[in-house]
Amino acid sequence: MISSYNVEEERNAHCALPGNEGNIYRAAEELHMQERKIMDFSFPVNPLGVSKRIKAELRQHLKYLNIYPDPEAKRLRKRLSQYHGIDPERILCGNGSSELLHLLIRVLRPRRVLIPVPTHQEYEKTVSRIQETDAGEVAAISYHQMEKADGFRVDANTFIRAIESMVASPPNVQYSSQSVCMAFLCNPNSPTGRVISRDEVKRIAEAAKENKCYLVLDEAFMDFCPGESVLADGAENPYLILLRTMTYFHALAGLRIGYGVCAQELVREMERCREPGTINSLAQRAAAIALKDRAYQNETYAVVRSEKKFLEKKFTKLGIEFIPSDANFYLIKMHDAQRVLARLKTKGILAGDCSGFRGLDDTYLRIAVKSHKENAVLIRELTKLAGKEG
Amino acid sequence: MISSYNVEEERNAHCALPGNEGNIYRAAEELHMQERKIMDFSFPVNPLGVSKRIKAELRQHLKYLNIYPDPEAKRLRKRLSQYHGIDPERILCGNGSSELLHLLIRVLRPRRVLIPVPTHQEYEKTVSRIQETDAGEVAAISYHQMEKADGFRVDANTFIRAIESMVASPPNVQYSSQSVCMAFLCNPNSPTGRVISRDEVKRIAEAAKENKCYLVLDEAFMDFCPGESVLADGAENPYLILLRTMTYFHALAGLRIGYGVCAQELVREMERCREPGTINSLAQRAAAIALKDRAYQNETYAVVRSEKKFLEKKFTKLGIEFIPSDANFYLIKMHDAQRVLARLKTKGILAGDCSGFRGLDDTYLRIAVKSHKENAVLIRELTKLAGKEG
Repeated sequence: MISSYNVEEERNAHCALPGNEGNIYRAAEELHMQERKIMDFSFPVNPLGVSKRIKAELRQHLKYLNIYPDPEAKRLRKRLSQYHGIDPERILCGNGSSELLHLLIRVLRPRRVLIPVPTHQEYEKTVSRIQETDAGEVAAISYHQMEKADGFRVDANTFIRAIESMVASPPNVQYSSQSVCMAFLCNPNSPTGRVISRDEVKRIAEAAKENKCYLVLDEAFMDFCPGESVLADGAENPYLILLRTMTYFHALAGLRIGYGVCAQELVREMERCREPGTINSLAQRAAAIALKDRAYQNETYAVVRSEKKFLEKKFTKLGIEFIPSDANFYLIKMHDAQRVLARLKTKGILAGDCSGFRGLDDTYLRIAVKSHKENAVLIRELTKLAGKEG
Repeated sequence: MISSYNVEEERNAHCALPGNEGNIYRAAEELHMQERKIMDFSFPVNPLGVSKRIKAELRQHLKYLNIYPDPEAKRLRKRLSQYHGIDPERILCGNGSSELLHLLIRVLRPRRVLIPVPTHQEYEKTVSRIQETDAGEVAAISYHQMEKADGFRVDANTFIRAIESMVASPPNVQYSSQSVCMAFLCNPNSPTGRVISRDEVKRIAEAAKENKCYLVLDEAFMDFCPGESVLADGAENPYLILLRTMTYFHALAGLRIGYGVCAQELVREMERCREPGTINSLAQRAAAIALKDRAYQNETYAVVRSEKKFLEKKFTKLGIEFIPSDANFYLIKMHDAQRVLARLKTKGILAGDCSGFRGLDDTYLRIAVKSHKENAVLIRELTKLAGKEG
């Protein structure tokens, strides 16, 4: 694995291709189809959909929508603290984890940022977006290339060296006195799907702490392999910040709910600087119910496991190269990925275009694990495309 | 009317008493009561509650919560444009109007700010909150005192002179080159309840434009007296920014949905700088339905009109001084307001404490117009308190 350490300014990074989230509306317009008729493999949401228990709870709650949501999300924070076995004062809920990511960058004002690539595009975009609005701020972003040969997994030792290298690098002249460093890590990583072990992450977190570098650990897909989470391990590390979302595993994308876990002092500082009442009351209610819904969680594990077996078998049969995944999506590589993407789209099937991801190219697609019916349709279409090509 | 023009920095303004919104959760905890058992007169939401049509629509939509919300809120913007007869490109929807207020301040970066007082506390708080996170920014906030003798109404001529005075004042040395000016106006005003006429607002907006001063016109309660709205009049004025919310009239407080109307260029700039996907899909759906719900709108006018008559008659009988209101709440003045507030609270009745409002004192309360049953309970309790006192 080669660690490429290039300091560069990325003022226009948000002009890169947008993530796929929300694309379904544009696609529906373009294809003159109803949104719900589109098979969206670009968005890796739980194929079971919204749980029955949550729907029943929300139905009961509609009549209370005239009441302002709890700005402190106390009940949900209490449930999260019980669920994860952590202090509720270390939890901050957000209007999706993206609100918390924005808030973090605004409060901590990192000047040097380390991002392993390929990864979720929102880290780079958020840093750049905030640079633009808060004029005078320039963060130097460096990228740590993960290699395909390693299944695009971060190697703890190499990543720790990259953190040390960032911390040791001469800070931007303008802010020499207090140049905050921040490293991002998405685990399991998106769009590649690989998880790194709890032990390795703990080592990285420890090194970050020693180097006084904040480590933003995005566990957006960790519910799919909960054994590797370090959520309950961070109490002694003020430099470790965890982000979680209920969007994917709990299929609550439409409601916008996420949470962060970090040092109490940072939670307070973020609370002080945030807009009031950003989390709607249905999101708070649904998230609290989701944590208790063990039946749904177990069914999810079973369905995802079985569908991953199905997809892997079919990918292999079709000669489609894929990265082994610990989450509910696959990064696949096809030399004609862009042709496949376009052809699938004409059938109302969206795949995740990865050509805009730093560290990947236009031969990569991200494919969500969906219901068996949908997965079978996708495989049928991929088979047809392979046939036409041959 | 006296215009007091004092330039002062308000770095700690957000430490002032919080607005009452959301207080119901704290009160419930304190009183060991269920939230829904509390009669919240501090929050002026439509006494009809969430409309039946909206509840029915949302019930149908719960199964689609696994889909990410439309980040552009296209369907809702189209409906709003039809409803108000304006260009959809001039509309920006937000996670409540408070998201838009924050975004506005971040994008326009005003250095000199004019706020008539007493008014909604969030303008001052937002300017101060953003000053704190975006270090190095200092806005000079000046306050334009509205007088009780005038029913706390802004006089257009005096306010225009205050705008001219702000624009002419020496800008902060640090930012002499491009010192953006911004004036706020809440119409009908909260917590006072008075509306100023469309003609007067148009004159103020014209003067703001001539002085290159942004006018942020908050029409949060305008649905209660829609004839005075200038929402459809601003197309030629790039300095006029309107804010609307569906929280109060449409009783959608729990969902968080608001919108802004301003120049297309400013909409684009705000879109570029915002977080993606902040507006949940139920909020988008409910707001679109609300606009078509004429029966609910008409019933609201009837109920609010009749309950206002009832309350005014009873206030008069009890010798409680009140400001005539064009909205769905009253600013009342009682020499023992704080005692009344505390006594009502022990009965599970919340009134709006106005002692934290700049330009008012601890003898003022804001009382929402609620259902007849609730209003009757309030009047009964106020009568008892008056009896005990006499």
